[in-house]
Amino acid sequence: MRNDLERLMEQRGLDGMAVLGSSLRSAALRYLVNGADLGDSWFLAGRGRKRHLVHNPMERDSAAGAGVEMSTPADNDFPALADRSDSIQHAWGRMLGERLKKMGISGSLALYGVADVGLALEVRRTLEDEYGHKVVGDMRLPLTDELRYTKDMHEIEILKGLSKITCEVMGRLRDHLASLKPSGGKLAGPDGSAARIGDLRRIVRMGFAEHGLIQPHGSIIAQGRDAGVPHNHGNDAEEIRPGAPIVVDIFPQDTASGYYYDMTRTFCVGPAPQDLRELFVTVHDAHLAALDTFTLGSLARDYQHAVCDFFESRGHATLRKDDRAEEGYVHSLGHGLGLDLHERPRFSASPMNTDALLPGTVFTVEPGLYYPSRGLGVRLEDVVVAHGDGTFENLTDFPLTLEV
Amino acid sequence: MRNDLERLMEQRGLDGMAVLGSSLRSAALRYLVNGADLGDSWFLAGRGRKRHLVHNPMERDSAAGAGVEMSTPADNDFPALADRSDSIQHAWGRMLGERLKKMGISGSLALYGVADVGLALEVRRTLEDEYGHKVVGDMRLPLTDELRYTKDMHEIEILKGLSKITCEVMGRLRDHLASLKPSGGKLAGPDGSAARIGDLRRIVRMGFAEHGLIQPHGSIIAQGRDAGVPHNHGNDAEEIRPGAPIVVDIFPQDTASGYYYDMTRTFCVGPAPQDLRELFVTVHDAHLAALDTFTLGSLARDYQHAVCDFFESRGHATLRKDDRAEEGYVHSLGHGLGLDLHERPRFSASPMNTDALLPGTVFTVEPGLYYPSRGLGVRLEDVVVAHGDGTFENLTDFPLTLEV
Repeated sequence: MRNDLERLMEQRGLDGMAVLGSSLRSAALRYLVNGADLGDSWFLAGRGRKRHLVHNPMERDSAAGAGVEMSTPADNDFPALADRSDSIQHAWGRMLGERLKKMGISGSLALYGVADVGLALEVRRTLEDEYGHKVVGDMRLPLTDELRYTKDMHEIEILKGLSKITCEVMGRLRDHLASLKPSGGKLAGPDGSAARIGDLRRIVRMGFAEHGLIQPHGSIIAQGRDAGVPHNHGNDAEEIRPGAPIVVDIFPQDTASGYYYDMTRTFCVGPAPQDLRELFVTVHDAHLAALDTFTLGSLARDYQHAVCDFFESRGHATLRKDDRAEEGYVHSLGHGLGLDLHERPRFSASPMNTDALLPGTVFTVEPGLYYPSRGLGVRLEDVVVAHGDGTFENLTDFPLTLEV
Repeated sequence: MRNDLERLMEQRGLDGMAVLGSSLRSAALRYLVNGADLGDSWFLAGRGRKRHLVHNPMERDSAAGAGVEMSTPADNDFPALADRSDSIQHAWGRMLGERLKKMGISGSLALYGVADVGLALEVRRTLEDEYGHKVVGDMRLPLTDELRYTKDMHEIEILKGLSKITCEVMGRLRDHLASLKPSGGKLAGPDGSAARIGDLRRIVRMGFAEHGLIQPHGSIIAQGRDAGVPHNHGNDAEEIRPGAPIVVDIFPQDTASGYYYDMTRTFCVGPAPQDLRELFVTVHDAHLAALDTFTLGSLARDYQHAVCDFFESRGHATLRKDDRAEEGYVHSLGHGLGLDLHERPRFSASPMNTDALLPGTVFTVEPGLYYPSRGLGVRLEDVVVAHGDGTFENLTDFPLTLEV
């Protein structure tokens, strides 16, 4: 969390750090500026020093929300630096070097954030070659990822609000599916025309827009064969077919706070065929089993292994056995959720993955089974918070039902 | 444009290049994969070699849209590399090194895109230290910016479609303002309650959602003093006041193609006070003058100087005279527009800025004047395409009228 910054810099032997990027691209920046919505900015911190933000002067009102010392590029002599540097990127590196000097920060420095790759490389070069910094890597669990690893009550409240909206929108979609009428072997909407996947996507889009949520990554509303390819977004033109699985995976972002939610249900209009029903029950059981077994401090990868054990025991291939598998269970059990849609903890089965379920972690639980060759895919996804008292709270209050 | 890639690599003396990032964050990546919507991916090119894309296997359907040779991390032995590397970032660097080796690319290499800064630095280190590449900077006009510098007819058609939608949504907002009724010195909406800035933002949000457009950067709907701070997004709770300027700057993104549009009008309900009207006329004149004077091949910065001349002659401060000015004309005349909201050409007055108005460039024209201390701000923004025959087409067909 935010107030661990000083301790984590010390732990990593850093004299200072800089975070590059905009709030839109860099969750680390957005987190450190208290959620302020800023274009390209520079957040600077040094051990025992005041935090500092270099921001666009036109964004001074938003930047003030960061609650730290601020300056503009012009305050840091940027126009003059730009006139005598090889490139704008070089000038930004120098501006950063000059500001760090003013802040009394020298020595080992880490760079974080999300930024133009060329800019990042040139800033590093300039700080090393012209300002004598040692720019060090911070890889396994970068400081800014560790800060965001556990959520405070305020963040959890935001996520609970987003859960309500997301479940409400999922309910609208389900109700629409339930309202479809059979008509000559097809399904027709309220106006009598053929019901299509695009209708569902529109319901979701309009529902979120009403609440001020956007879908920067789009949405997955994918039927049959498409549902069998986990990240296939689905085909709007396709008619909704009775008996086919429709995977609805929606992951909106709150424009006000920047936080994401993430939720998946799999629906089928009318009675589901036997093979789909069996697949659904297996995923459903895996989902409930996972939710039932989380313990505080345990390793996330252990749950990936457990769900692989379970699916393999039911005869399904998994990525653990074959890292090129495209049928069976072909992804991780879940992922951390916050200002990024995918963040720590990770649930990869790799022995390199030592992410643990610490108090305040928030993550998705989303087992799935995929058989594109048979026109089948099923996924069920909720969001869980690990509380300090050892309980795991499921934030997603929506039935796990296949048939509508 | 895309087919300049080979020539531009040669011109820059590059043996190869890699673009890091996701379609959402990196316009360069999205451009090179033909608009495909991909999560974190790696686009690779070498002189005289086939292009190659390393993509997430779950995204294989989208990735196929790139129309290039493809592989997954597992195809490149990533899981094994990850198990014997210091970090995931290190393993990604090695995966890239191995793939480049397979492609027969060695020597000087440039890295582009938008990515996690720590990842970018570690990839560079790994390619240099372990694979003998020379990672070179490409700064003044990075190759990927030059590719996207000029637009083809297909891109211009997309922008024309976005213009129609954006003007339609702007029209809804204006019509709503026109429908407000005076009620006890205030303005009331159709239901009789006080009209607020938030109502306007909702109209815009719902309008764009209907058309599948999102607003990743939000929207600027800012009144009075807030209108006087160019990037202040405005206060939803504020009541709409007769006689106050409302700057409406909307910049939606098309989720299907990834392209942005950008448009600004300044409105005032009821008769505008004299000082606002004068400011508006000055900005309006600057706007028309700029639109009238563009010539092919000229330097963008010259138009920034021209508009500064004009505003200064009318007694307004400009950034050119005082780089910390917060009142007067405090930004650039415009910016390139495409898969990024702000791209080349730039209109900064700096002598370093040698961006020219080449055939196929698409850019905004948006003079403005700002007096937050007097509760005033005015900006008018259209989008212009430079055609090869020397004409400049204004894509924004919407009246420049202050009072509604």
